[in-house]
Amino acid sequence: MIETTIIEKRRPKKLNNAVLITGLPGIGLIGQVVGRYMVEELKATKISNLISPHFPHQVFMTKKGGLRIIKNSFYLVKRKKRDVVILLGDIQAMSSPGQYEVAGKVIDYCKKLGVTEIITVGGYSTGKIETDRHIHGVATSLKLRKKFVKLGVVFGEARGSIVGAAGLLPAFAKMYELDGACIMGETHGSYVDTTAAKQIVILLSKYLGIPINIKRLDQRAKESQRILQKVQEEVQKTMEQQAEAATRSVSYIR
Amino acid sequence: MIETTIIEKRRPKKLNNAVLITGLPGIGLIGQVVGRYMVEELKATKISNLISPHFPHQVFMTKKGGLRIIKNSFYLVKRKKRDVVILLGDIQAMSSPGQYEVAGKVIDYCKKLGVTEIITVGGYSTGKIETDRHIHGVATSLKLRKKFVKLGVVFGEARGSIVGAAGLLPAFAKMYELDGACIMGETHGSYVDTTAAKQIVILLSKYLGIPINIKRLDQRAKESQRILQKVQEEVQKTMEQQAEAATRSVSYIR
Amino acid sequence: MIETTIIEKRRPKKLNNAVLITGLPGIGLIGQVVGRYMVEELKATKISNLISPHFPHQVFMTKKGGLRIIKNSFYLVKRKKRDVVILLGDIQAMSSPGQYEVAGKVIDYCKKLGVTEIITVGGYSTGKIETDRHIHGVATSLKLRKKFVKLGVVFGEARGSIVGAAGLLPAFAKMYELDGACIMGETHGSYVDTTAAKQIVILLSKYLGIPINIKRLDQRAKESQRILQKVQEEVQKTMEQQAEAATRSVSYIR
Amino acid sequence: MIETTIIEKRRPKKLNNAVLITGLPGIGLIGQVVGRYMVEELKATKISNLISPHFPHQVFMTKKGGLRIIKNSFYLVKRKKRDVVILLGDIQAMSSPGQYEVAGKVIDYCKKLGVTEIITVGGYSTGKIETDRHIHGVATSLKLRKKFVKLGVVFGEARGSIVGAAGLLPAFAKMYELDGACIMGETHGSYVDTTAAKQIVILLSKYLGIPINIKRLDQRAKESQRILQKVQEEVQKTMEQQAEAATRSVSYIR
Repeated sequence: MIETTIIEKRRPKKLNNAVLITGLPGIGLIGQVVGRYMVEELKATKISNLISPHFPHQVFMTKKGGLRIIKNSFYLVKRKKRDVVILLGDIQAMSSPGQYEVAGKVIDYCKKLGVTEIITVGGYSTGKIETDRHIHGVATSLKLRKKFVKLGVVFGEARGSIVGAAGLLPAFAKMYELDGACIMGETHGSYVDTTAAKQIVILLSKYLGIPINIKRLDQRAKESQRILQKVQEEVQKTMEQQAEAATRSVSYIR
Repeated sequence: MIETTIIEKRRPKKLNNAVLITGLPGIGLIGQVVGRYMVEELKATKISNLISPHFPHQVFMTKKGGLRIIKNSFYLVKRKKRDVVILLGDIQAMSSPGQYEVAGKVIDYCKKLGVTEIITVGGYSTGKIETDRHIHGVATSLKLRKKFVKLGVVFGEARGSIVGAAGLLPAFAKMYELDGACIMGETHGSYVDTTAAKQIVILLSKYLGIPINIKRLDQRAKESQRILQKVQEEVQKTMEQQAEAATRSVSYIR
Repeated sequence: MIETTIIEKRRPKKLNNAVLITGLPGIGLIGQVVGRYMVEELKATKISNLISPHFPHQVFMTKKGGLRIIKNSFYLVKRKKRDVVILLGDIQAMSSPGQYEVAGKVIDYCKKLGVTEIITVGGYSTGKIETDRHIHGVATSLKLRKKFVKLGVVFGEARGSIVGAAGLLPAFAKMYELDGACIMGETHGSYVDTTAAKQIVILLSKYLGIPINIKRLDQRAKESQRILQKVQEEVQKTMEQQAEAATRSVSYIR
Repeated sequence: MIETTIIEKRRPKKLNNAVLITGLPGIGLIGQVVGRYMVEELKATKISNLISPHFPHQVFMTKKGGLRIIKNSFYLVKRKKRDVVILLGDIQAMSSPGQYEVAGKVIDYCKKLGVTEIITVGGYSTGKIETDRHIHGVATSLKLRKKFVKLGVVFGEARGSIVGAAGLLPAFAKMYELDGACIMGETHGSYVDTTAAKQIVILLSKYLGIPINIKRLDQRAKESQRILQKVQEEVQKTMEQQAEAATRSVSYIR
């Protein structure tokens, strides 16, 4: 496998004005917690997996004695008004060329599916614990900005840059003539923030016009954190072993 | 050479329900010892070499005054019941993109040959010396799991991740609609483990229904270790020289 | 996106013997200050954006709540005598393969547009503050050299190498049968040098036969410096976070 | 430019059983000194340049005010018996994938030209100063080995590996059904060794059946060393600046 590849379980019929919501690891783990919660609460169906040479070269052993490659997956929720696609993932690509490649594949696939809008979810790190937290946003069109402003999202106050898919996907959306936005929960940045995740689930529930019960979020966020931590520890361990192998001569070449 | 390339010495006729066994360097050197021993004991015939830009850019000088590029090789054992292909190698690819590329090429080639099952061999590092050692396994299908359970392989107890080809190949097998498993000998992790290798040879002998004498394994494992150590030292030396050249200004640009 | 891509806003009609001037970040920020000033003073029209997987994987949030991907852009000034294309950019590619890829794409695009000459602008670092500063040049043809000598540019006195697009683009120009030169303001090297930038604007004004008022340069150079610093800080911050994440286990995988 | 590219000045008619001799930087600078000396003494004609994204992204300023990209070049000596192609270069590719790519392009081009044999020249580092020095060799065929044994080259005594093009090119030659050998002068390893270079020039003179006067070698070796040192210093300086920029926040993004 030389290029990032999307392996479809089944190609759904042309979607109805669909919106993509991303649930990838990032600041405060907000995106991933939101994405995983929505997949579970909305009983979304997995439609495809995305595998990439820019992800780590390791697979996880499951409790049942199976194995699971590190991947991102697309899920679908069919709705009368507009369909929702959710991109959920263990990890993001580990280099700039990898990030651009994956983002390009995601946008191509979205266009094929009939997605017309890309909403990424992330965290906006403030380094402190806020009592009155905002949800910040950036968007590619005035129209989309207005919709989110009505729902209380703050535009033009966040400073700096957005790293990874949360920024690249809406930027690519614009280039490929789709609408795009990134919605960021204000967060400390160094711990998993379920409060911010809840705020965003409520926001997206209103935005998409889909009722989502947030009762189980706390519990499920812990599950998200547990999985992410496992992934992170394994990737970390491998990197450390390789760094060690590169300086000393202790481990076999692999 | 821009992509990993498999150079065939001769293309065998469509194989009979063949199984691929891997013998690549990894934890406790178990995979490589098992693979090399089976190639020798079963008098397997080399059918192709795999060369990759993701292997180190160096060649070994032989005692006869020849030269040998760092490579992986495919060997074939023709059997009435089912044919066996063994992948033996000096090294694994040195980056994630390299690992994915090589694994993809191996699977493509296996499909062309008529391989239907991929069994990788590795070590499961416990960091201690066990008196009663298990063989751990993960598999892509319940059917394959059951076959190995009957032979005493333990599923669902090993934790964490499998790094490199031992994990990627069965994961890719699944994606390409082949069966796959990884069989791991329990081992300390920081020395060559011929006891674990013997266990696996006995297991594979039963699994494949091929009698394999394990008398000479100890002696040959030493030979494997010697070769691997030579490869490792040379690659290490080159890396250190390049690291040194990158910080000081002592060696010529090469 | 796997390769560097130029996204055209509009393809202009075949240009009239056009010259490309580059305004990219580099020593003393001279190139970027000159490029940005010329784009503004000459009211150049943006004709395309260049996006590259070899740029950092981050986007900037704008004051209006929009987002802006890191990019280079081509601007056009239509003139009776000869048209001028200006390449302005936030950044240069972050690796050698990236630099070669971007330079190749720029030259291909220039040939399509009808550009016949490539003039890159850079700084020549002396490590001290000169009272009587030269403008140094290198050129691919004697003809071009002579033109610049007449305008006071010094050839054959600068020593060493030119790093990045300022050197690669004229070298590529030669290979693709275009004329090329690099014009370098003598500068200390460790601060933004608007005096050197002014000298180059005056030189290019004469060379191109286009009057350019340099009154507003000081003020606008400050703006350039502010933008560059923001880009640099954000890229730096991300790199540090990733370096930290690679050694400790503190931040989420992204 | 995405792939290593060979730009032909002129394509010579199909060569007569030609042999390629390499003159690239490496241990003791022997290869480059030999190659450069032969190009000059035999008045070889440049037929093409090889440019690669795996070379550093910098160009050299010439004394005449021109610029010269870092490159390798092919030179041709037409001879009655057999033609000689010499590959001379400033540098070798800076990564394993780069080394494999460049070696592949060199072999492809050689096959097009009608080259039938690849002889690389390198150094064999002993870490001490030998009074009675050998020339060591490795070769892909017994026939070639015998020819060099007759001329006093020692086979089967050198140990370890050959790094870079000196090893990859003969290994690739074999895969592409050409003959190949690497000829190495015994040398200390940490200084430029003109004595070893002389030995190799005399050897190649005999092997090729071409008289080559070695009187001017000492003087010209100093020139080789001077050029290489300049290249090395510039590349080194750039790498250090980039390493510094990656850890502190001092230099502009380039």
